[in-house]
Amino acid sequence: RHAALAKPAGSLGGLERLGAQLAAVAGTSPPPVPTDPALVIAVGDHGVHAQGVTPWPRDVTRQMVAAFCQGRTAANALAATVGARVTVLDVGVAGPVASHPLLRAARVRDGTDDLLDGPAMSCDDAARAVLAGAGVADELLAAGADLLLTGDMGIANTTPAACLVAALTGAEPEQVTGRGSGIDDATLAWKQAVVRGALERHGDDRDPLAVLASLGGLEHAALVGVVLTAAAEGVPVILDGISTVAAALVAVALNAAVADCVIAGHRSVEPGAAIALAHLDLVPLLDLQLRLGEGTGALLAVPVVRGAARLLHDVTTLAELREELP
Amino acid sequence: RHAALAKPAGSLGGLERLGAQLAAVAGTSPPPVPTDPALVIAVGDHGVHAQGVTPWPRDVTRQMVAAFCQGRTAANALAATVGARVTVLDVGVAGPVASHPLLRAARVRDGTDDLLDGPAMSCDDAARAVLAGAGVADELLAAGADLLLTGDMGIANTTPAACLVAALTGAEPEQVTGRGSGIDDATLAWKQAVVRGALERHGDDRDPLAVLASLGGLEHAALVGVVLTAAAEGVPVILDGISTVAAALVAVALNAAVADCVIAGHRSVEPGAAIALAHLDLVPLLDLQLRLGEGTGALLAVPVVRGAARLLHDVTTLAELREELP
Repeated sequence: RHAALAKPAGSLGGLERLGAQLAAVAGTSPPPVPTDPALVIAVGDHGVHAQGVTPWPRDVTRQMVAAFCQGRTAANALAATVGARVTVLDVGVAGPVASHPLLRAARVRDGTDDLLDGPAMSCDDAARAVLAGAGVADELLAAGADLLLTGDMGIANTTPAACLVAALTGAEPEQVTGRGSGIDDATLAWKQAVVRGALERHGDDRDPLAVLASLGGLEHAALVGVVLTAAAEGVPVILDGISTVAAALVAVALNAAVADCVIAGHRSVEPGAAIALAHLDLVPLLDLQLRLGEGTGALLAVPVVRGAARLLHDVTTLAELREELP
Repeated sequence: RHAALAKPAGSLGGLERLGAQLAAVAGTSPPPVPTDPALVIAVGDHGVHAQGVTPWPRDVTRQMVAAFCQGRTAANALAATVGARVTVLDVGVAGPVASHPLLRAARVRDGTDDLLDGPAMSCDDAARAVLAGAGVADELLAAGADLLLTGDMGIANTTPAACLVAALTGAEPEQVTGRGSGIDDATLAWKQAVVRGALERHGDDRDPLAVLASLGGLEHAALVGVVLTAAAEGVPVILDGISTVAAALVAVALNAAVADCVIAGHRSVEPGAAIALAHLDLVPLLDLQLRLGEGTGALLAVPVVRGAARLLHDVTTLAELREELP
């Protein structure tokens, strides 16, 4: 259809590829224009925080949960900009969190264990967090959501994310480990050593759930559930930064067909994100040098997705144009 | 302010730079969040079409004016997606165009002359087209528009745009001349020869209005007026592809301060666009491999601009967060 529209063939570049993907996911062309995008911000804490991989106190995770609920974060500002609703999913915060209508309390445990010393969590715990994410995604879809977005919060979570990307793409720890929130050279070198040490401690097991439990975080596990559910229901899902892309790697390792429903919202500054996207054969829509997470890059991609679908509805064909106006 | 917000410093990358620019343009921080973006699609025909620089018939320009007015183009679909209004400005179509509420009839002449043989138009004609663009921009701003977008339509207009970019950046014709709507190798080689020939015919005069009249198009001239007016009124203006970027080069050559108000919506596939943006020291917000024009890339940048402004309003500071939740 794009080839017949009143424009040079291919002149809408990435929008044409995206429109074709949306049509394939929906099984119909033109594809529906998303009207009800829903962001899931999965939240967890990390035992590896004790290794000093980030200068941020662990308690900031909990503080950010409150800020998400109050609508005072970057994710909230961008969600309001693009008309997306926000759900905060506590699958693994450490410490008390006040209840709130935007918060789903589905905590599996109070943060993970230190992945350098041993598995971050049991396979049972990882599976429970996956199911928590799947449950929230199911609820959102049942309530009318027609586009899911993935977001994450968890101080220190770029360390487990880098571990997942290295384990599932075969890339070296030094390639996939970045500065996260903005660490100095010495901390980066140590963080890379931690990732390498964790991979060595984990060994050769490449079973996706085993990798997730051993090297991941509870929020990564929850996002695996969100991605699997979106794909199972035939709804597109937009990725954000490295934590969400790491979750997508696990989901695709569990079921390769999932990749068809996944959209890369943006290219994060975090080097592992680009490596994981390339592994998934995904071209990011935006490149705004973001490295915040929370779903910010996924949110900014929503109008691009809407536009890609709408083009296939509204634009006339060249043949029609020529017939009507000789 | 961005450094104080509840996020790692710099983690919003291009959104932080854009937010600071919007604050500088408005003279206040946080800057206003644009609520009424308005796209001007300036339209003209080109005498250089006779040189065979494009396979598209010249009459498509006129057909597209009708399609814009009917809301059936890519620009209309994306304008509806982001909530922008569209004004079509005929400053130089060749042939009859039906009147319509969305159309401003301000035709200076029926297309330009062939810029390979002589000046495309007189300086008087170019100035009249600049004023037509300025007039429409003034009207839109008076009616409440708080963000202007530039778009273009004109079969063959990447040839004059390439001439303007070469003349005003000093780049070689071969560097700035691309495939436009998608021409083959032989046509590209000829198009490059036409651009080189036009620059040689024009000579060394670098007076911006003289360059515009000699080598440009009427729609480029109108967009110079749009950009100058936005800057004069302290309203940001988003560029699209090579024709709009060429117009911005002329506007900045006339008044360097204009550059502060200009936002690069996207990086066009057309090579001259990236060269012109680099010359203007502008970093494009999107890179979706677009090469359509019409304002499509500017439209997709609107939610990014809104988000960049809104972040500075809605996001809490880290200090507030820590005070409230010990």
